[in-house]
Amino acid sequence: MKNFAISIAVCCITFAASAQEITLPKPDLASGKPLMQCLSLRRSARNFVNKPLPLQIISEIMFAADGINRPDGHKTVPTAMNRQNQTIYAVTADAVYLYNNKKHSLVPVNKGDFRRDCGMQPFHRTAPLIIVFVSDTSAIGKTPAEKALYSGNHAGSASQNIYLYAASKGLSTVICGSIKKDILKKILKLKNSQEAVFAQPIGFPR
Amino acid sequence: MKNFAISIAVCCITFAASAQEITLPKPDLASGKPLMQCLSLRRSARNFVNKPLPLQIISEIMFAADGINRPDGHKTVPTAMNRQNQTIYAVTADAVYLYNNKKHSLVPVNKGDFRRDCGMQPFHRTAPLIIVFVSDTSAIGKTPAEKALYSGNHAGSASQNIYLYAASKGLSTVICGSIKKDILKKILKLKNSQEAVFAQPIGFPR
Repeated sequence: MKNFAISIAVCCITFAASAQEITLPKPDLASGKPLMQCLSLRRSARNFVNKPLPLQIISEIMFAADGINRPDGHKTVPTAMNRQNQTIYAVTADAVYLYNNKKHSLVPVNKGDFRRDCGMQPFHRTAPLIIVFVSDTSAIGKTPAEKALYSGNHAGSASQNIYLYAASKGLSTVICGSIKKDILKKILKLKNSQEAVFAQPIGFPR
Repeated sequence: MKNFAISIAVCCITFAASAQEITLPKPDLASGKPLMQCLSLRRSARNFVNKPLPLQIISEIMFAADGINRPDGHKTVPTAMNRQNQTIYAVTADAVYLYNNKKHSLVPVNKGDFRRDCGMQPFHRTAPLIIVFVSDTSAIGKTPAEKALYSGNHAGSASQNIYLYAASKGLSTVICGSIKKDILKKILKLKNSQEAVFAQPIGFPR
């Protein structure tokens, strides 16, 4: 038990201290509550303990949101015409990271605590991890409404996977549409064609 | 085993012959594969056996897509500002039904086989069940793009639950954005403010 606690602490410290690329541990693909139980426990919650999540949990959140689950590169979430135009960012107390699903790693894009810039509500300052869903709208749809419909759809699919993972693990999470898109565009260093569409804080409940 | 086969057959016949309101059996909330296994098995598939699904499976698909999972009326999927402006329709070989999540029942809205009117691809004629996601866009967003973003998000959340349920049960399913919106508006008897946004066939794989 003591060894287990130390190894969790080391994981968190390693994650906190570096802004280097972080190779995530493998997700445990046999784990979790039965699906129907996760569906019955799914809820939005806005209370968070302001402490870094263990790397194993971060690994499994990223796999749920955007993981590659087949040798041909297909993912845990569908995208229209398999354009795979959604990318996932992880905003922590220390840095902003882009999830590289091919390497299952977190690539730093900005150092510092930008959590408060992710959304309008106080809990954006205390959640240890905020997932930001980013859509490259040049890849899909003809009209702004069509582009938005598909962007929203992709984010919804990924977000729901995170919700069910939170239900399975007893974590708090909530999807937020009121986000600071212009600020996020700078902080996440997005291209012109990319847009932050939703943000989803996640952590242990307070 | 024989009794089991007969009871399945009776379920299917009952579903097929009537266009009465169908009270669905309770979903088994303890069942299903572990969540991480469902995430690793999640995929899009377009081959379907053209035979009605057992009512127990239809029950659990509807619960996944739009079920009430708490006494206060909250659901398996989140909606912006809890507007709950998404409704779910079930299109079968026999009829079109609206899912009433308060009663966990299917309410007939049109009799006949309208599956081919749900989408552009041949498998829309053979999938035993097509789920249609409908958004009341008067309830959310200011601009057409905002309304589309939230409508897409809600449909994505519900669709992903169905994908994971399919992964857990060995069913085929795929979300489709190329749908016949104008025809669906008539067939589903939608209000002016309602719009069909995505359709998702589901059935046993061929």
